[in-house]
Amino acid sequence: MSEPAGDIGLIGLAVMGQNLILNAADHGFTVVAYNRTVSKVDHFLANEAKGKSIIGAHSVEELCRNLKRPRRIILLVKAGDAVDAFIQQLLPFLEKGDIIIDGGNSHFPDSNRRYDELKEKGIYFVGSGVSGGEEGARYGPSLMPGGAEEAWPHIKDIFQSISAKSDGEPCCDWVGPAGSGHYVKMVHNGIEYGDMQLITEAYDIMKRIGGFTDKEIGEVFSQWNKGVLDSFLVEITRDILLYDDVDGTPLVEKILDSAGQKGTGKWTAINALDLGMPVTLIGEAVFARCLSSLKDERVRASKLLPGPQIPKDAVKERQQFVDDLEQALYASKIISYAQGFMLIREAGKTYGWKLNNPAIALMWRGGCIIRSVFLGEITKAYRENPELENLLFNKFFADAVEKAQSGWRKTIGLAVSYGIPTPAFSTALSFYDGYRSERLPANLLQAQRDYFGAHTFRVLPEAASENLPADQNIHINWTGKGGNVSASSYQA
Amino acid sequence: MSEPAGDIGLIGLAVMGQNLILNAADHGFTVVAYNRTVSKVDHFLANEAKGKSIIGAHSVEELCRNLKRPRRIILLVKAGDAVDAFIQQLLPFLEKGDIIIDGGNSHFPDSNRRYDELKEKGIYFVGSGVSGGEEGARYGPSLMPGGAEEAWPHIKDIFQSISAKSDGEPCCDWVGPAGSGHYVKMVHNGIEYGDMQLITEAYDIMKRIGGFTDKEIGEVFSQWNKGVLDSFLVEITRDILLYDDVDGTPLVEKILDSAGQKGTGKWTAINALDLGMPVTLIGEAVFARCLSSLKDERVRASKLLPGPQIPKDAVKERQQFVDDLEQALYASKIISYAQGFMLIREAGKTYGWKLNNPAIALMWRGGCIIRSVFLGEITKAYRENPELENLLFNKFFADAVEKAQSGWRKTIGLAVSYGIPTPAFSTALSFYDGYRSERLPANLLQAQRDYFGAHTFRVLPEAASENLPADQNIHINWTGKGGNVSASSYQA
Repeated sequence: MSEPAGDIGLIGLAVMGQNLILNAADHGFTVVAYNRTVSKVDHFLANEAKGKSIIGAHSVEELCRNLKRPRRIILLVKAGDAVDAFIQQLLPFLEKGDIIIDGGNSHFPDSNRRYDELKEKGIYFVGSGVSGGEEGARYGPSLMPGGAEEAWPHIKDIFQSISAKSDGEPCCDWVGPAGSGHYVKMVHNGIEYGDMQLITEAYDIMKRIGGFTDKEIGEVFSQWNKGVLDSFLVEITRDILLYDDVDGTPLVEKILDSAGQKGTGKWTAINALDLGMPVTLIGEAVFARCLSSLKDERVRASKLLPGPQIPKDAVKERQQFVDDLEQALYASKIISYAQGFMLIREAGKTYGWKLNNPAIALMWRGGCIIRSVFLGEITKAYRENPELENLLFNKFFADAVEKAQSGWRKTIGLAVSYGIPTPAFSTALSFYDGYRSERLPANLLQAQRDYFGAHTFRVLPEAASENLPADQNIHINWTGKGGNVSASSYQA
Repeated sequence: MSEPAGDIGLIGLAVMGQNLILNAADHGFTVVAYNRTVSKVDHFLANEAKGKSIIGAHSVEELCRNLKRPRRIILLVKAGDAVDAFIQQLLPFLEKGDIIIDGGNSHFPDSNRRYDELKEKGIYFVGSGVSGGEEGARYGPSLMPGGAEEAWPHIKDIFQSISAKSDGEPCCDWVGPAGSGHYVKMVHNGIEYGDMQLITEAYDIMKRIGGFTDKEIGEVFSQWNKGVLDSFLVEITRDILLYDDVDGTPLVEKILDSAGQKGTGKWTAINALDLGMPVTLIGEAVFARCLSSLKDERVRASKLLPGPQIPKDAVKERQQFVDDLEQALYASKIISYAQGFMLIREAGKTYGWKLNNPAIALMWRGGCIIRSVFLGEITKAYRENPELENLLFNKFFADAVEKAQSGWRKTIGLAVSYGIPTPAFSTALSFYDGYRSERLPANLLQAQRDYFGAHTFRVLPEAASENLPADQNIHINWTGKGGNVSASSYQA
């Protein structure tokens, strides 16, 4: 029997899987393809894969038999039970040191578990985020692999060959341990939710306050795509707004304004709450989709609940209005990414993962849905200082927000007075103003909690005194007369 | 052997438990008290409980032996494993039809599970929210019992006797099945987070924009407590702001502005995300606490990130400024409660619970932390129409928001332009403006999702046509030329 020829195996021949295989074959790798419904393998071999370095397998065993060691097998199947089922099917045919890569949209706690389970068996598990849709899979996705670091030297060449490139650098690097690859993909998707929400708010303001036509709005996005907002999502927004239906009117205006969600944005928001990180923009973006989906209720509410009238000439200086809006979008986007990286940083601490921030920014720079020029700047910021505490502490971004501030505030002021919802713009600004507040009003909140629940509080270091000692939990009888203070460690 | 004398048993003699026992004894019930550390039982009997209808028990068995049938036992122990451990200890001494009531801060999924487990054994489980702190427990708490409805006739008299009263009506009624009592308590706590955050934003605006002293702000809260905002939290805020330290300066200004949380606000926000309900105000309130806790980072940020200067005379018409602020607080509060009841409504649908909205509002009317005149209006609204789709569809609240709108928008406009964070005020307004929008910009978002991920969209009913059929998932090749439309059920 001859030596096996397969460099890598792939299970799951839906569009994403097929495209990744073709991509890898184009880069000179021999790929062994398997699918549960095996007729799909034959069809693929006879058509798209014809004449390429692609081998069909009709069983998991055949797949494994055709792979060089250590075996490298990518699963591109539905997240959930199917992943576990295929892992179980594979195990009898694998040897210690072989590598299983889950390229699906798995939730990171599942990847943590699989990493642990397979580690016990001597198999290296890699959970890899894959972003970029069908197009990306075929010609260069963003790949975010994490898990068993021992696997990385064996998959690095293939992964970095097939991934997108940004200024010649692959948009794929090692993320970190256990489920961290899928974790970073989850945050990517949350940020995607935020970016999309910000864009829709800008569109809504131009449409409802500015009275712009979709063509005019499309032209604005086209201009923005040449500046600091240059990105895939701004580019496709331009395309969408300029796309007419057969009757010559903009198709987008015929689409039902009720947004679906696949859950990854929600996962990010829930994780932010769990880790206690104020990732407010993604939270609002998810909630905005929820509100949009209450379409029938909104239609009824619109007839009952009045708002301000918007005069026809609400916007007098059109270019200034558009420029302000661009700054609002840019500043809000900076806040959203700052929050996203705050979350990643906290996850690193909480889960004990050493994560590679410059690499994460670079992985998102190209190939994926949130790819943008902007992410080049973030990459630069983290390369200058990989331990950067917050994106807003980088001079480029601090200056950018300072410059954007005036237009940002004016835009929100306009939306507030004219009754256009801007949940994402507004929460971004509130975060900025809260983050740069040396003192927030949470002192009052702590007093309230101590008043009704004896939850205790601490004093500001500079206000400590004999009767209000520093670094102690203090409880007061607020209904007593002044001065009735006692230090206590009571915990309600 | 004589007949057992105990009307009700209570396990857990921390302050809350002791106070509930004394409360019940005052109302003529004989209470059997038990605590794991039994010396606490003796101490309690010899002191606070002396001369009252309270029986001490030194074992779980003794507790059960002293109770009339069906036995009624309240657990007031730490949420989590301790509850399960006591249930296991109790079971050998219970008979079918006996009742276990968990009065702790349990997470509702745990109560769902315990309800199911005990049902199998013929024991009736009740999970009851208890709010009002130590003071409430002693003289009249808000009680929110849910679970096995068979238990209600046996505990109704005791529960409604010891609970708070509002206009003569007990702030305690049957909530619904399984874990619904603890669910409603969870939402109560989430709303409490929101109310507290709104109050701190009002304080911050008066302090930083208006330049008010704490005494002046205290007077404002004192005035507000005589109007539509009349509530426990406004009242204690007045007390706190007027409370001086021994040096004669306001104590609240010496408290560290870093807020803790016990998790129930977080649970509410996570549940809202899980159920897909836009409970944005509680979400922002939780995140605001998270941001406050990043104190050291904020101090560093405050030196780097500039904001607008606030002139000394930023507020010229003080009374108008205060009145606008009152309206902002009132309107935001209405939104928060509307969102809370939206969540409860959705939970009823999702979990198959028939919930009693007027009763829930009445339970919160008195005794608990969020008690207010305002909740009397909500009770009235739900009594007029128990199936009310949304609080904002009630005339009283729709009118109130309409009247409040101008001051609300002016207040947020001021905060936005002067750089004071108002995450809760702002998200409430964005929700209002989104909720009353017949069309939101989610049509663009759906187009984006279809563009990059072939997620498909639907058309507005009024825009349906031969090539854009109604009620079908439609996918378009957006990069093609206009008119290239195909209906599809492709799901990515």
